[in-house]
Amino acid sequence: MTLPLNPHLAATFSPPVMEARRWLAEAVIPADRPLLNLSQAAPVDPPHPDLRRAMAAVMLNEDAAHIYGPVLGLPDLRDELARKWAAEYGGVIGAENVAITSGCNQAFCTVIQTLAQAGDAVVLATPWYFNHKMWLDMAGIETRLLTPDAQMMPDPDQLDALMDDRVKALILITPNNPTGVAYPDALMQAFRDKARAHGIALIVDETYRDFHVQSGAPHSLFADPDWDETLIHLYSFSKVFRLTGHRVGALVTSPQMISQVEKVLDTVTVCANQIGQRAALYGLRHLGSWVAAERDKIHRRHAAVRAMFDGLEGWDVVGSGAYFAYVTHPFDLPSDQVAQAMMRDQSILTLPGTMFGPTVADGGDGAAERQLRIAFANADMDGIAELGRRLARFRP
Amino acid sequence: MTLPLNPHLAATFSPPVMEARRWLAEAVIPADRPLLNLSQAAPVDPPHPDLRRAMAAVMLNEDAAHIYGPVLGLPDLRDELARKWAAEYGGVIGAENVAITSGCNQAFCTVIQTLAQAGDAVVLATPWYFNHKMWLDMAGIETRLLTPDAQMMPDPDQLDALMDDRVKALILITPNNPTGVAYPDALMQAFRDKARAHGIALIVDETYRDFHVQSGAPHSLFADPDWDETLIHLYSFSKVFRLTGHRVGALVTSPQMISQVEKVLDTVTVCANQIGQRAALYGLRHLGSWVAAERDKIHRRHAAVRAMFDGLEGWDVVGSGAYFAYVTHPFDLPSDQVAQAMMRDQSILTLPGTMFGPTVADGGDGAAERQLRIAFANADMDGIAELGRRLARFRP
Repeated sequence: MTLPLNPHLAATFSPPVMEARRWLAEAVIPADRPLLNLSQAAPVDPPHPDLRRAMAAVMLNEDAAHIYGPVLGLPDLRDELARKWAAEYGGVIGAENVAITSGCNQAFCTVIQTLAQAGDAVVLATPWYFNHKMWLDMAGIETRLLTPDAQMMPDPDQLDALMDDRVKALILITPNNPTGVAYPDALMQAFRDKARAHGIALIVDETYRDFHVQSGAPHSLFADPDWDETLIHLYSFSKVFRLTGHRVGALVTSPQMISQVEKVLDTVTVCANQIGQRAALYGLRHLGSWVAAERDKIHRRHAAVRAMFDGLEGWDVVGSGAYFAYVTHPFDLPSDQVAQAMMRDQSILTLPGTMFGPTVADGGDGAAERQLRIAFANADMDGIAELGRRLARFRP
Repeated sequence: MTLPLNPHLAATFSPPVMEARRWLAEAVIPADRPLLNLSQAAPVDPPHPDLRRAMAAVMLNEDAAHIYGPVLGLPDLRDELARKWAAEYGGVIGAENVAITSGCNQAFCTVIQTLAQAGDAVVLATPWYFNHKMWLDMAGIETRLLTPDAQMMPDPDQLDALMDDRVKALILITPNNPTGVAYPDALMQAFRDKARAHGIALIVDETYRDFHVQSGAPHSLFADPDWDETLIHLYSFSKVFRLTGHRVGALVTSPQMISQVEKVLDTVTVCANQIGQRAALYGLRHLGSWVAAERDKIHRRHAAVRAMFDGLEGWDVVGSGAYFAYVTHPFDLPSDQVAQAMMRDQSILTLPGTMFGPTVADGGDGAAERQLRIAFANADMDGIAELGRRLARFRP
């Protein structure tokens, strides 16, 4: 290649999902041992039929859905999300706090670009979401890491030791990808207080909030009257309404920050696509009871996965909850080799811990090599039982 | 605001389109003097009815259109675009050279991020496309400017004077936004040779190529067997198929660069939205003759705009062609004040040259203050005649 290359980009790892797709493509899957795909952090089924019909009708009948819309999103969608968050979390949130993005990844990238420049630093909790790590690497922003306790909870006191003037933000994902655990309100408040004291942003990614194992508000951060001086909230419509192909997410922050976010969104994508935004609005208005049933279904799968691993010699669940279980394997091999052997020998596709945290070669403590993410949300009860049978006989 | 703020972002101007929308919102538009909106660089009508029906059918019948697709885009769309470019420009272009993006702006941002980091420099031709300038400012990348000659053509020899090791790329837009002019093949080749000699990328944005005033290949850059060592080509499906609300664009470059682009696209948007990609594919396969008729219509409007300005005292067309005319006004006022007076007193919305180049306060040579962009593509013949009548009596 003779074209110039940004060295930050050259130093960024390739998308882990591509690596997993390569394992899948290279595997021989016998007819009597069909694929068990436990790698997917998103629904694989299409949306509710009513939503599909509503989207088709928009295509035919709504001219405005085919042309540019406002940079920050459809006013009705911004307003509906603000009302929902205000009702569910308590606190004062208005449409002026909301920006609609082309998926939750863009919400994250936009927020980081708004807060920090190359040479700054951002704190991630490990295990991380790999796209967060990739974006920070590409942007030349240093990542500093919080290590979890035995329950996969990060420690607010550890933040103090990571701080200096270069740190601009802390990102927490709850319920967590990849571990599935939801952080208790008291822990979220402790991090908020630390972030405020240090003058940094607390970015909370709640992509999986709709599958939270507890009812009621998952935290009380929005109830603080000054929430928008510290908190930036990220959300995805993809998981809850099965709209991954339509790229719609959101971020919630102060109106001052929204005016900076608007510059980025205008320049990168002009606006989120119009049909996805209308689908998200339809979902918020009409699919509440369907979402509740989906959540119950995923909770039953969660219970089945826990019970299955409890009966499995040598494997331990270190964290689980909405969508994911994070487990340790019993083998004297690093998790990326275990995951590849599981694919090759048992037609089980999972993602290894080495994709979610620093390997020993990169200064990690060895946890990444022992762990695997089990994305069970798309597996039915038969699939979970079959997973147990195959893992019981699996030796890499 | 107590949240941290990236100083590059704070220093970036707000979206000019937002400013123009504010003028529109604040104007009183009398019933007997309806709005003449000549500010829009994109179609305002919905797509062809057949395309709308095809999109509705996809929503109802194609499950895969609702879930994530490949990061680099639908294989069929990548392949179709490669075949079309190979046929129309000559040269060897394959699907492996193509990435589908969430609009052409994202194609530009992604390419810049792949080539350059903060502290590097990129050369723009003035007048610039303001979203290009904004992204470079946000990224902390210095912009160096080529000034146009009287025919609005940039000068390849000027590039030499702007070069040092920090420069990573040159961006040219042809047909140009805002001037409408298309750069001749000899000029494009001269810039390609300069870029190659200096070891920088030549980024060519052909968003408006489908409305080119000449038939045949607009340039011969792809016919060079080593084109992908220098050239990066950007395209938009929004203008040609009226899909601005669906956010689909493309970039064409070397497979090595595509593998870096893939990291960025995966991290920012995961994939371009699926329905927009299917609409673009339908357009490429089925709407060729409709596009040809649209192009003829815009060319008739172009001729009418030229004739109208030729008969207008004090105004001059300094450049025109696909979609736009770039004109000088006769008043002793800067163009942003002229544009606001035109909106207020004549219900004519245009964008001033001050949005497309450095003002005198920022080191400009005064050209930006004398110029206005007339985006005539959405104006019919009656609208163009009415524009002439109103401009003839306009005094700011």
